[in-house]
Amino acid sequence: MSNTTELYDQLCDHVSKTALLTSTSALLEWDQHTKLPAAAGAYRSEQLTFLAGEIHRRSTSSELGDLIGQLAQSDLASDPTSVSGCVISRLEKKFKRTSKLPVRLVEELTRACSTGQQVWVAARKENDFSEFRPALETIVRLKREQADAIGYDDCAYDALLDEFEPGAKTKEVADVLEGLRVDLVPLVEAIGASSIEPPVDILHRSFPVADQEAFGRRASAQIGFDYQRGRLDVTHHPFCTEIGPDDCRITTRYDDQFFSGSFFGTLHEAGHGIYEQGLASEYYGLPAGQYCSLGIHESQSRLWENLVGRSKSFWQHFYPDAQQRFASLADVPLDDFYAAINHVAPSLIRVEADEATYNLHIIIRFQLEQALINGDLAVADLPEAWNAKYQDSLGITPPTDADGVLQDVHWSAGLIGYFPTYSLGNLYASQFYDAAAAELGDLEPMFAAGDFGPLKEWLNTNIHAPGQRWSSTELGEKVTGEALSHERLIKHLKEKLTPIYQL
Amino acid sequence: MSNTTELYDQLCDHVSKTALLTSTSALLEWDQHTKLPAAAGAYRSEQLTFLAGEIHRRSTSSELGDLIGQLAQSDLASDPTSVSGCVISRLEKKFKRTSKLPVRLVEELTRACSTGQQVWVAARKENDFSEFRPALETIVRLKREQADAIGYDDCAYDALLDEFEPGAKTKEVADVLEGLRVDLVPLVEAIGASSIEPPVDILHRSFPVADQEAFGRRASAQIGFDYQRGRLDVTHHPFCTEIGPDDCRITTRYDDQFFSGSFFGTLHEAGHGIYEQGLASEYYGLPAGQYCSLGIHESQSRLWENLVGRSKSFWQHFYPDAQQRFASLADVPLDDFYAAINHVAPSLIRVEADEATYNLHIIIRFQLEQALINGDLAVADLPEAWNAKYQDSLGITPPTDADGVLQDVHWSAGLIGYFPTYSLGNLYASQFYDAAAAELGDLEPMFAAGDFGPLKEWLNTNIHAPGQRWSSTELGEKVTGEALSHERLIKHLKEKLTPIYQL
Repeated sequence: MSNTTELYDQLCDHVSKTALLTSTSALLEWDQHTKLPAAAGAYRSEQLTFLAGEIHRRSTSSELGDLIGQLAQSDLASDPTSVSGCVISRLEKKFKRTSKLPVRLVEELTRACSTGQQVWVAARKENDFSEFRPALETIVRLKREQADAIGYDDCAYDALLDEFEPGAKTKEVADVLEGLRVDLVPLVEAIGASSIEPPVDILHRSFPVADQEAFGRRASAQIGFDYQRGRLDVTHHPFCTEIGPDDCRITTRYDDQFFSGSFFGTLHEAGHGIYEQGLASEYYGLPAGQYCSLGIHESQSRLWENLVGRSKSFWQHFYPDAQQRFASLADVPLDDFYAAINHVAPSLIRVEADEATYNLHIIIRFQLEQALINGDLAVADLPEAWNAKYQDSLGITPPTDADGVLQDVHWSAGLIGYFPTYSLGNLYASQFYDAAAAELGDLEPMFAAGDFGPLKEWLNTNIHAPGQRWSSTELGEKVTGEALSHERLIKHLKEKLTPIYQL
Repeated sequence: MSNTTELYDQLCDHVSKTALLTSTSALLEWDQHTKLPAAAGAYRSEQLTFLAGEIHRRSTSSELGDLIGQLAQSDLASDPTSVSGCVISRLEKKFKRTSKLPVRLVEELTRACSTGQQVWVAARKENDFSEFRPALETIVRLKREQADAIGYDDCAYDALLDEFEPGAKTKEVADVLEGLRVDLVPLVEAIGASSIEPPVDILHRSFPVADQEAFGRRASAQIGFDYQRGRLDVTHHPFCTEIGPDDCRITTRYDDQFFSGSFFGTLHEAGHGIYEQGLASEYYGLPAGQYCSLGIHESQSRLWENLVGRSKSFWQHFYPDAQQRFASLADVPLDDFYAAINHVAPSLIRVEADEATYNLHIIIRFQLEQALINGDLAVADLPEAWNAKYQDSLGITPPTDADGVLQDVHWSAGLIGYFPTYSLGNLYASQFYDAAAAELGDLEPMFAAGDFGPLKEWLNTNIHAPGQRWSSTELGEKVTGEALSHERLIKHLKEKLTPIYQL
């Protein structure tokens, strides 16, 4: 064995051991959201903070730096799309970024975000932004400090965005989303002017929780989420997390008077989970076995939730079962159900928004968090700014902060720079879907037959297995032959919504 | 601040940080037993192994050794029953013990025990000891290696017992348990010869799981388990674990055709939990805030399960509610129910054994594990030896290994030297109960009125709050004025069982 190979093995061993701590930390967080006793929050923050410090120390250790330094110029690093090249180059970039952050800042941020989430839960429940404000001020201050420590050319927000969408620039993302907005607004207006009203009330009938859970489990398993390697639990804010190569956990929430929230939420998180489960287990903890970017991650959840789960053919397969399980749907024709689940209308809550207006929710958050980080907006003025933007973009004003600025967990968890990846995911999803169909042929008859295997395997091969061997931009171009664009999403929306609303 | 005080603060800080890892490791284990996806076991073992190595490194670091060395001769250590004296002296003992164990052995043991438990679950399910045998052979080999590394005067088993019951000697424990056995056997024989047959069939009627759970939660909360600082979940083998100063988790299992298993199991684990919740939170992670010994721990679970939970007065309070919840009990008079839950008869499964024969189950395990560790018994011969002892002591032979040698998780988890503490707990429980009654007056009228506060507070003050400031032997003598003895347990059993069986 050459010296380089030995060094490479040492590098992989070092990073894989850090992944044992990172995944343990993920369990602490999962447990905090799903199981933690009411009084146990403070100590949980200390546990998370200590682990974050240890992870940071390992991730910035001179031992790791030396290994990366020695390998960066070696043959093993020459092709960044090979496994070893991907591992070395991504670790090098991450090491440089992480090394700029003092342990003190990492620990402060971890503590602020762990307690921030706990304060947010209470503030949202009490509908009291003032209760959350000091925690958010601390987080924004620390995130700005983080951005300054990392450094940036154009704007502080760039430094934060890069954590979630490596290589992406604020300006470029803003341009793509502006293109999307320009095409979306007239579409939403045209729908608003249509005389057609899908019977959305049928989704607000009685849907017993136990039946929703059983149906959600069945559908998520059938599209490919492996429950031998994962779980489904209940949380207020649904999420997907990975606690090991064979331990992906998704969550959802149930409302016994609403069908869509839980069902499409479960499909969405299952889409994330199928991505995690499709990563190369043998490279677990290494960049070659990690997700590419949050935009690509979101493309997988959105693809299953919207392009598959809201298609007519999906329901040609599942609707008879739904009608059997839910007496409330017995008298509802498939076409009515299909129109209802694809209903488009301005609304207040992002996670319950329809496929079209959803992106307007994202653009609002993207603009607000840029303003917070770049110093153009004070936290104290955030509720007012939020409400003004909702009025401006969607024509509605939240009656309470719980329905407005307090609705999302992200900022309380320090996830600033994260929101735009949701819309990037929507764009990638449409582009990937069309690329899959170009290769596999018409997917709809497969869905109608309950066969989701070909699409899942195509995604496994083309999107999941590569890990971080290409950046999101590179992967998108490699797989679709096109640059990132809003056009295919608009095309999908028009193809679906034109017949429903007779546009 | 004196130099000594600064050193002491550094010591406490060091050990408290280690406790962040230990408690995180407890979450990994809790999750493994309650929530882990089927395929995720191997990686969980790696996570636990890595943390065990880190904990071991911290617990044997020269930094810690230096602090202890400097403080051991200081004024702060002069009184071992003061908080600082307890902290320093217990840490000194633990440091010496732990430092004798190579990291390699600690990691091997952790891995062997984590996978051992997973193999045991499968082997028990398949009723196949041969599937478990190699894992147990590894564990026994490593535990003997551990005993040799720690060192001992009389026998290797002493070195293992000391981990669970600090200061106890195999010979002394054996003597006390032999005294117990000598008095128990004729009592059990007399009961066997009695013509009275409590109507145990009433406990095997229909008891819907949801109602059992609600009733168990109510009773455990009422005796003092704080659900704001804890949880109750379902596992195959019930346990209690502590994941932080305000995060104590207990588990139980339900059989919808059996009342006692879950109910008394829940009370038992709640008793453990009340002890954990009664420790001094301000010393969390330090010996002054940790449980004294497993014998003392078990005294708390047994006290609530048997001396309180199986008393007539307890049921004078709870039985009307039980009859309301469970239609199966509507026609059963309280006296019949009381006799049934106190039924004594030889049986196969330890955790379902009655209060009297339970100790015979323990003595069998105590003898077998001594033989395994001292080299007098091969793992291959264990099932046969197990069955012979059951025939000899209890007059019954397990029909399958699942009902025999495979029934307990302990050995698969490396818990060798643990079993005798269950019987020590029974002895301490009776002695503590009598000491509490001597101070508080007759407890039974309080139970009949649903008032468990005085007993709980007495235990909080006298047993829980001291942490490790006294050894179990010292604490027992301090609180009861008596040496450890089997006599009060026998007295309790006779007082209860004589009228039931008309002995």
